[in-house]
Amino acid sequence: MDDEVARGTTAAGDPPHPDAPRRAAADAAPGDPQGRGSDFLLLDAAAVPATGKADWLAGRLRQAIADGRLAVGGRLPSTRLLAAELGLSRGVVTEAYRRLAEDGRTEGRRRGGTVVVAAPRPEPAAPEAPPDPAPDALFTGEPTTDVFDALRAAPARVDFTPGRPDLAVFPRTAWLRAERAVLAELSADTLGYGDPRGAPRLRRAVTDWLARSRGIRVSPDEVIVVAGTAQALALLNPVLRAEGVDAVAVEEPGSLGTRQHLHYAGLATPPVPVDEDGVRVDALRATGARAVLLTPAHQFPTGVVTSGERRRELLRWAQEGGLILEDDYDAEHRYDRPPVQALRALLADRVCYLGSVSKLLAPALRIGWTVPPPRYRAALTDAKRFTDLGNPVLPQLVLARLMESGDLERHLRMLRGRHRRRRDAVMAAVGEHLPGAVVHGAAAGLHLTVTYPQDVPDTALAAAALARGVKCHPLSWHRQLPGRPGLVLGYSATPPGVAAEGVAALGRALRELSS
Amino acid sequence: MDDEVARGTTAAGDPPHPDAPRRAAADAAPGDPQGRGSDFLLLDAAAVPATGKADWLAGRLRQAIADGRLAVGGRLPSTRLLAAELGLSRGVVTEAYRRLAEDGRTEGRRRGGTVVVAAPRPEPAAPEAPPDPAPDALFTGEPTTDVFDALRAAPARVDFTPGRPDLAVFPRTAWLRAERAVLAELSADTLGYGDPRGAPRLRRAVTDWLARSRGIRVSPDEVIVVAGTAQALALLNPVLRAEGVDAVAVEEPGSLGTRQHLHYAGLATPPVPVDEDGVRVDALRATGARAVLLTPAHQFPTGVVTSGERRRELLRWAQEGGLILEDDYDAEHRYDRPPVQALRALLADRVCYLGSVSKLLAPALRIGWTVPPPRYRAALTDAKRFTDLGNPVLPQLVLARLMESGDLERHLRMLRGRHRRRRDAVMAAVGEHLPGAVVHGAAAGLHLTVTYPQDVPDTALAAAALARGVKCHPLSWHRQLPGRPGLVLGYSATPPGVAAEGVAALGRALRELSS
Repeated sequence: MDDEVARGTTAAGDPPHPDAPRRAAADAAPGDPQGRGSDFLLLDAAAVPATGKADWLAGRLRQAIADGRLAVGGRLPSTRLLAAELGLSRGVVTEAYRRLAEDGRTEGRRRGGTVVVAAPRPEPAAPEAPPDPAPDALFTGEPTTDVFDALRAAPARVDFTPGRPDLAVFPRTAWLRAERAVLAELSADTLGYGDPRGAPRLRRAVTDWLARSRGIRVSPDEVIVVAGTAQALALLNPVLRAEGVDAVAVEEPGSLGTRQHLHYAGLATPPVPVDEDGVRVDALRATGARAVLLTPAHQFPTGVVTSGERRRELLRWAQEGGLILEDDYDAEHRYDRPPVQALRALLADRVCYLGSVSKLLAPALRIGWTVPPPRYRAALTDAKRFTDLGNPVLPQLVLARLMESGDLERHLRMLRGRHRRRRDAVMAAVGEHLPGAVVHGAAAGLHLTVTYPQDVPDTALAAAALARGVKCHPLSWHRQLPGRPGLVLGYSATPPGVAAEGVAALGRALRELSS
Repeated sequence: MDDEVARGTTAAGDPPHPDAPRRAAADAAPGDPQGRGSDFLLLDAAAVPATGKADWLAGRLRQAIADGRLAVGGRLPSTRLLAAELGLSRGVVTEAYRRLAEDGRTEGRRRGGTVVVAAPRPEPAAPEAPPDPAPDALFTGEPTTDVFDALRAAPARVDFTPGRPDLAVFPRTAWLRAERAVLAELSADTLGYGDPRGAPRLRRAVTDWLARSRGIRVSPDEVIVVAGTAQALALLNPVLRAEGVDAVAVEEPGSLGTRQHLHYAGLATPPVPVDEDGVRVDALRATGARAVLLTPAHQFPTGVVTSGERRRELLRWAQEGGLILEDDYDAEHRYDRPPVQALRALLADRVCYLGSVSKLLAPALRIGWTVPPPRYRAALTDAKRFTDLGNPVLPQLVLARLMESGDLERHLRMLRGRHRRRRDAVMAAVGEHLPGAVVHGAAAGLHLTVTYPQDVPDTALAAAALARGVKCHPLSWHRQLPGRPGLVLGYSATPPGVAAEGVAALGRALRELSS
């Protein structure tokens, strides 16, 4: 039987049927006529390598099975025949066959030789990459979970997408210098599994940073390093669930991205209107929600700084049993006003603080921290452990060095100057090209919000702007309730001249749509 | 009223009561006698800085409130008095007071001056750091979720903890070189928010790696970069739940860590015995579970390589509707046998492949990948998006370069040589010091499992070993069902001489316990 030769039992090019192993094997009766040797395997004696012959042969046979040249139910050539054709010893061929059997690809049959019993199932044709989204499609209907990916993929000359600092000046040299130092002094143990709360050195550096810049005085044991605020929200979900919380009130208007994260976790997001003093606490009480997500230092997207009176009201609400998730996303970016301390500094056991370097250095670093109320620490540590066993250690240690050395503060000062000039340029351009528009919340942050009196839906305006090569968020993306139309313009990544050109294009688009 | 002076309404050292704001404020009747000026604030005119005076004063006042020197309900000194005492202009003092009001710390009362209404709640005393765990406590009862943290924290001369490659030879120079190149060529956009599935360049490099070393041929669009296998399991949870899967069968014995991850997600883990051919498919069928987590290339902890016959049975089970989670955790580490291909190469739509660099480079990098069945791709992408918005980009690009340049393969070859020598040393020492013990699964991997005939619980042996300065896992940690006692010895991080000494100590401990 060793002399019998394989033939394909399915026509060439016929993809194996899902049920092929059993069906085709039954078709492969012993006693098939002698056949074609190994020609159909496209093997070439001259291609046999000097070493690793069995490896090579097994690889070629696997490829033949994957391609369908050696179909399920087909038999392999006899070891004697194949060895002779390729000038190999029979031991090499036997070894290659053994490996295929070990893979589960073939099976020895007493009188049927070695038969192919399993082939890689061909992948369903990958869906075509979607074409560049049409501006209209992007801004039509409820934004989908991948709407930010789609907007990012859209080509544009001027990018006012909010949420990033000026990434062109990321401190590459300082980062590399710190990384060299980290790698030079690192102990081998540090490269193993570590504390899920993060590297102790970074937690110390964050503690110092929070005390210095945000008025929060805690010990490193109270800090959990996370992969940005997005992850902090994901980690909080099981903790909130365990307390019976199924809704987190959010600011109205408020960040669409944040709301999508809460919805993915199955949490309701009752909206609470924001006025010129911050979120309205009477409306918060009326929702009945036991938790609220706030951006008190610089509300997104309105830029409102929560007033002292409103802070006191919020703290009173929290002391009566409410939980405040304080998203301090761009507190360090301020131009025309003194810093406002974090709420967490005032009420440790009812405020969960969330911060990150996304707006200080770069979102792609995926490093942030949370300072939870003490009673949540253990549960959040477990949540982090079972989400990813902790953040990657090298970037944590590099960041710790940048914080310790003052490099991060120097970078932030430099950013402030650049961002302020860019903000001024956008504001001037708005004054010139969008008459009647109102600018909100420009004293701080990385974006400003513009509302306009014309009766033009902001999604239509954003679509028209994108068609003209200008990318921005319609304000209505960040609303759950009806409200004035507007645009959210991130100015940090856009040089002043380009920004002016972009705002001029917005002005033209608005004029056309409202005429 | 501006002339009135604060006094503390609660005794010094008395921590503010949770309800303090309203209660204490009511106590603070106007018309308190003129008081002590600002002495109690411990302010010193000589300490006033040349610039940033209002900042400085606000900071000192916040500190006084935090310390309780200026208690809730107490009034601030009049601006006139404090300005005179400190040699400041009244405008500076007014500005500092305004900031406290903005914080929500103070409130102006018409006739009561400026009153403190909120103080930072003192943190509950941080729990004492737990003492080094006693060896007995670590190995008593069901292992807790932080058992690996506790074991890591325990001091030891010889560390046989399994699961890490030799971290002393992590390729620091190659890593730094690659990082320099990455930072030099990086576009600013790459530092923003990115594709939640990971950097396209790494997904391409992983695709090539999987084709070359694991026989898996897929496109980069089918790869999702994750923070290690631990995260892949977390991401799969909502996907499995959506299909009504509430149990994932696991190998018996099988990894405790993996089981803890599944349990945290609320999944049951019915055990399926492993024999010398791999997991028993008849027993798998009997559990009724629709998903199973396997380590087919080198079973943890037994080291069994799933046989060809068993692979075929598994694929049949999967084709009938089962889902295989293939944890390919150390497939690249093999010494005495040829590579076995991944199951994912044979059955794309019923096998979800999980791989990582934890055993190739270092666990602390937290980089892995999953190649899911096509129908899970979109849901897993969303799960990754809402868990952390994607892995950090810099380490991804560095790893991609190491894969492209061949540095990773060179590193792996070097590791194989080192690990093989270390394995040989441990095996020789076991032969010498643990007579009657049986070594399992030493042809590959980073650990071996030793069972012994003596009637000594392996937790007692592991505790006695740790008391002698030798760290390892008792085999029973990795069992759900009763079975022979044993130890799991990771040898990769332990030089041959040290390993011999460690095994000798294990031998002495076992003799004492069994006599």
